[in-house]
Amino acid sequence: MIRAGIVGGTGYTGVELLRILAGHPNVEVRTVTSRQDAGVIVSDLYPNLRGRVDLEFRPPEIETLADCHVVFFATPNGTAMRMARELLDLQIKVIDLAADFRLRDPRDWEKWYGEPHACPELLDEAVYGLPEVNRAAIRDARLIACPGCYPTAVQLGFLPLVESGAVCGSSLVADVKSGVSGAGRKAQLTALMAESGESLKAYAVAGHRHHPEIIQGLSARTNKKIGLTFVPHLVPMIRGIHATLYANLSSSGDDLQELFETRYANELFVDVLPAGAHPDTRDVRGCNRCQIAVHRPQQGNTAIVLSVIDNLVKGAAGQAVQNMNLMFGLDEGTGLPLIGLYP
Amino acid sequence: MIRAGIVGGTGYTGVELLRILAGHPNVEVRTVTSRQDAGVIVSDLYPNLRGRVDLEFRPPEIETLADCHVVFFATPNGTAMRMARELLDLQIKVIDLAADFRLRDPRDWEKWYGEPHACPELLDEAVYGLPEVNRAAIRDARLIACPGCYPTAVQLGFLPLVESGAVCGSSLVADVKSGVSGAGRKAQLTALMAESGESLKAYAVAGHRHHPEIIQGLSARTNKKIGLTFVPHLVPMIRGIHATLYANLSSSGDDLQELFETRYANELFVDVLPAGAHPDTRDVRGCNRCQIAVHRPQQGNTAIVLSVIDNLVKGAAGQAVQNMNLMFGLDEGTGLPLIGLYP
Amino acid sequence: MIRAGIVGGTGYTGVELLRILAGHPNVEVRTVTSRQDAGVIVSDLYPNLRGRVDLEFRPPEIETLADCHVVFFATPNGTAMRMARELLDLQIKVIDLAADFRLRDPRDWEKWYGEPHACPELLDEAVYGLPEVNRAAIRDARLIACPGCYPTAVQLGFLPLVESGAVCGSSLVADVKSGVSGAGRKAQLTALMAESGESLKAYAVAGHRHHPEIIQGLSARTNKKIGLTFVPHLVPMIRGIHATLYANLSSSGDDLQELFETRYANELFVDVLPAGAHPDTRDVRGCNRCQIAVHRPQQGNTAIVLSVIDNLVKGAAGQAVQNMNLMFGLDEGTGLPLIGLYP
Amino acid sequence: MIRAGIVGGTGYTGVELLRILAGHPNVEVRTVTSRQDAGVIVSDLYPNLRGRVDLEFRPPEIETLADCHVVFFATPNGTAMRMARELLDLQIKVIDLAADFRLRDPRDWEKWYGEPHACPELLDEAVYGLPEVNRAAIRDARLIACPGCYPTAVQLGFLPLVESGAVCGSSLVADVKSGVSGAGRKAQLTALMAESGESLKAYAVAGHRHHPEIIQGLSARTNKKIGLTFVPHLVPMIRGIHATLYANLSSSGDDLQELFETRYANELFVDVLPAGAHPDTRDVRGCNRCQIAVHRPQQGNTAIVLSVIDNLVKGAAGQAVQNMNLMFGLDEGTGLPLIGLYP
Repeated sequence: MIRAGIVGGTGYTGVELLRILAGHPNVEVRTVTSRQDAGVIVSDLYPNLRGRVDLEFRPPEIETLADCHVVFFATPNGTAMRMARELLDLQIKVIDLAADFRLRDPRDWEKWYGEPHACPELLDEAVYGLPEVNRAAIRDARLIACPGCYPTAVQLGFLPLVESGAVCGSSLVADVKSGVSGAGRKAQLTALMAESGESLKAYAVAGHRHHPEIIQGLSARTNKKIGLTFVPHLVPMIRGIHATLYANLSSSGDDLQELFETRYANELFVDVLPAGAHPDTRDVRGCNRCQIAVHRPQQGNTAIVLSVIDNLVKGAAGQAVQNMNLMFGLDEGTGLPLIGLYP
Repeated sequence: MIRAGIVGGTGYTGVELLRILAGHPNVEVRTVTSRQDAGVIVSDLYPNLRGRVDLEFRPPEIETLADCHVVFFATPNGTAMRMARELLDLQIKVIDLAADFRLRDPRDWEKWYGEPHACPELLDEAVYGLPEVNRAAIRDARLIACPGCYPTAVQLGFLPLVESGAVCGSSLVADVKSGVSGAGRKAQLTALMAESGESLKAYAVAGHRHHPEIIQGLSARTNKKIGLTFVPHLVPMIRGIHATLYANLSSSGDDLQELFETRYANELFVDVLPAGAHPDTRDVRGCNRCQIAVHRPQQGNTAIVLSVIDNLVKGAAGQAVQNMNLMFGLDEGTGLPLIGLYP
Repeated sequence: MIRAGIVGGTGYTGVELLRILAGHPNVEVRTVTSRQDAGVIVSDLYPNLRGRVDLEFRPPEIETLADCHVVFFATPNGTAMRMARELLDLQIKVIDLAADFRLRDPRDWEKWYGEPHACPELLDEAVYGLPEVNRAAIRDARLIACPGCYPTAVQLGFLPLVESGAVCGSSLVADVKSGVSGAGRKAQLTALMAESGESLKAYAVAGHRHHPEIIQGLSARTNKKIGLTFVPHLVPMIRGIHATLYANLSSSGDDLQELFETRYANELFVDVLPAGAHPDTRDVRGCNRCQIAVHRPQQGNTAIVLSVIDNLVKGAAGQAVQNMNLMFGLDEGTGLPLIGLYP
Repeated sequence: MIRAGIVGGTGYTGVELLRILAGHPNVEVRTVTSRQDAGVIVSDLYPNLRGRVDLEFRPPEIETLADCHVVFFATPNGTAMRMARELLDLQIKVIDLAADFRLRDPRDWEKWYGEPHACPELLDEAVYGLPEVNRAAIRDARLIACPGCYPTAVQLGFLPLVESGAVCGSSLVADVKSGVSGAGRKAQLTALMAESGESLKAYAVAGHRHHPEIIQGLSARTNKKIGLTFVPHLVPMIRGIHATLYANLSSSGDDLQELFETRYANELFVDVLPAGAHPDTRDVRGCNRCQIAVHRPQQGNTAIVLSVIDNLVKGAAGQAVQNMNLMFGLDEGTGLPLIGLYP
């Protein structure tokens, strides 16, 4: 059994990790930490886990994690970079669900996250945990930076177009809609149901931290310059991301449907829908799947990609477990839910 | 024009008061206070009021309110009782939307609200602002205690039964469901959409502050002892209260439909639906109306009353304006919305 | 492997059965029927099942079901009673998720469902599939009548009180709230999101088909007469039932918490929460669990029970699989989800 | 008093017209028709109108409308074009909320709406009822084609850019999100709350009827060719449209904030938010206002416009009344709500 620890188990990605790992046949969760809830029984805080997770939250200290094979960070940004070095030195693999190791250039980190990076020397070693791109490197990695939720949906949608050169990547548009769980389990006015229910708004139009992450990811797959306009929106639902992607086609000859089906033919967790389909976020609710459709209205020169994920699963906890499976030589799909909770 | 002030204008009842008063032909809102947002333009915080409310929040001080004819308190409990005396001394009428003057016995206040009452000498003078019961006294009052949202829906539903003696009041049950705006505009985990959306729960089964208020109100209308079981629930919608009320009938002879229609025949804001109806909270959304249906399944000895209001209007800001209209000799319905926003 | 058939696979209970059975290690779904969608690929209609359910809908005929070991009816009321006899004669076990075999007296069926019963001779043999009451009989049954969603939540909540004699059962009140999936996957105005979203209403106060079912179920567990007032409500959420139950205690001596914990000590799917808790429907979303709390406010003579289930799982498809597990000698929990999808 | 008739009063735009007109000081609604509900009391179907609308639905015949000054069509597409001629001949003004007179070329109608136009000779006379563009013509019109909901939000957002030449209009992108009331009050599976709640999807990516309408409207304001990619989405809320608009700037010199503020300086119903704002659909819920913000991220060459309306008000019934006010020489804002229902 793989002994796993979770640092920061009280947020939505933490509790989702617990849900998934509780059903994973090869994992035993040994430790869940929470600075503020140390001493609390996990299932007192999360009654959905009663009888399935029999742990209490412990303070986030290295010693309590020392007998783990792998430690997940489901923490706010800026935590993992302060503990990763010590864990790696103890031969513990680290999977960070936050942003600490996503950007390769520490200056980008400092610019977007507002403080100097605490261990820039690990950035080169960290592997960006998008298995559909970096599977081989993930298998050998000690330190994984799980992609953000928006970047997962956007990159999986753009990748076939960018990698193949079917689009000129200089004027991509990503109009992305997220459910409110993406804002995390934090007491904040804007996330109240009376504020965000029955309403929709864009936010961070001037600049969002996932913007440089997406550009970095797409740029690594092409030798052309990527230009991206990225607008996130808050939608009155709990789970789900829907990315609507626009790109100008370089040539008119490509069969986009075939391009997508071929690109993802062997991917368990990326499901290309039939031509003409419109994915619903509900169909991937609770499961580790990205469903994608590609359109080319009136056979014009614009490609439109519709890409949906559950932000807490393929956009966070599920993808983290997918990475763990690869790192430990397990079948990639082990323990990961594949059927969305509909209705 | 009536010059009005609002103390505590940043909560949901405060902003709803602004919406209603902005459309009231006889009122000019002179002052809106907020301790924490003093200096902020009201419509910067509430863009729905842009172009209609041209004020900034000011600190909550007596001097800024001194030229008002009436001051509304849309504050947390415990604020109005500390300022009411001074305002009354300045010949300013006071309408409290919070609980400070609802309970007649200061020991009840202390028991349920956790601190001694700051001006118990005003409790005798304060009039409980349920116009359907206290209309005459309200007209002459200087100090109004607006009923709570639950007590409004529950009392309007039980009153015809209790006043007429149609029920023995010793074992009433009120199972009441409220939208999340009832929890106020406060950053708190339980009111996040990711927590309260798509879920339903009861709360405060062991005891809720509105319990003694309802018992006090119903007891004043009968010489029998009132016994009440009261269970509030949080429902995944923003506005609306639905009270489902159960009572054992004293006799089998009463025509309940007629009883209700007669009791409320002259009430503009209480609408008795036809026999057999089931009111929807949406039909009173945004308006100052209570819709009620009364049932007696299988002609048995149980009466079931269904009573719906908008918690922020008839349950708070609208009822406060209804009281103001009475206090200033206006037509009771002036400026009050009567049509619910459907769908 | 158990070969299973599903008659009526296009409704919400049908697709939920498919989700659960797709993950069941001992079951192979051989046939899914749908009169109106015969010929359609199941996963074209339900994209959440893509890659996991590889079937097409077939017409609902006995021959297509003949090689099954068990057939589930996820059909409208009145279908199973017309096909059950033939299937039983073929040595196929039958599990009906509809109401056809729930009421033991065919006159009750005719009264509440509006037509004579098509095979009254099977009513004696049919076992009411509430394992927490009828486990032994279920193991030996050929024909199971799965309880309705409301009756499941209400009976599990009242049973400890009624069986123990802790309450006099003559004036029980069940105020029950259901998400909209309970209305089924039918094009009807009242179930539109613009109608049922952001609103709450009671319905069928004059009488609901689940009323006689609950009374029959509780009556079988006591020698006292059961009197029940039952009011269902429609709540703006998709899944979940919350039953709020009121009962007058016969004596003041019982420790209700202990009574409930003892009654359900060995039940995998009934989880009695700690004293003072208030269950949320979200904590059982997608899983086959009933969570229950019992209260006695102010140590008075009223017991209040809060009981939550997912109407499509413990209230329908999950309970059906729980019954199947018992009928085929499997561990009762095989293949059944136990962790709710939170948030 | 203006005597008004409403043909097709049972849909959401019809009932919203009734709500608005019931509060309009210069209008008396004389007739509301409905083929299917003829004979039904309006407020029996719509209890939110009880006591305020005292009419019954009548069959949709010319005679019943003959004493009106103005007739609104809140009907499905294809109805108004069959009755408009007769009404105009009776000197009755006609305001169509459906699509019958929106497209100037009858071949476009036939292409997009699937049947030949029934009175192409009126298309030249019909005035497209977007007052912010056609105010003068509306004042003199007998026949108004009210814009669609999407076209209202999209055109108001793009107009300042297109009219000024600030953008090259050949590659506009409109990513638009609508609440479910836009689908109308029709029993259809996809609009069930269990289907459209808690989910988001794009639809009609291959082509939507509002596409040619938007292009026609924008083209009329520029001599450049308009190219538009338009993707509508269904969002789990009842009311509201949020248009996110993308355009490439022609030059880098324009002050976009000033451009928008100047363009709409005198428009009561278009509210340009301060620089950097993100409008919420909730802030215009129930009111006849469009709130707009314009952004230019990182001072690049892409303009992003965020434009929100209530689809049933500024996108339908409210705009119709705004048109009526102009046609009858009233103040444009008479009777129209200006404050959104928040929360």
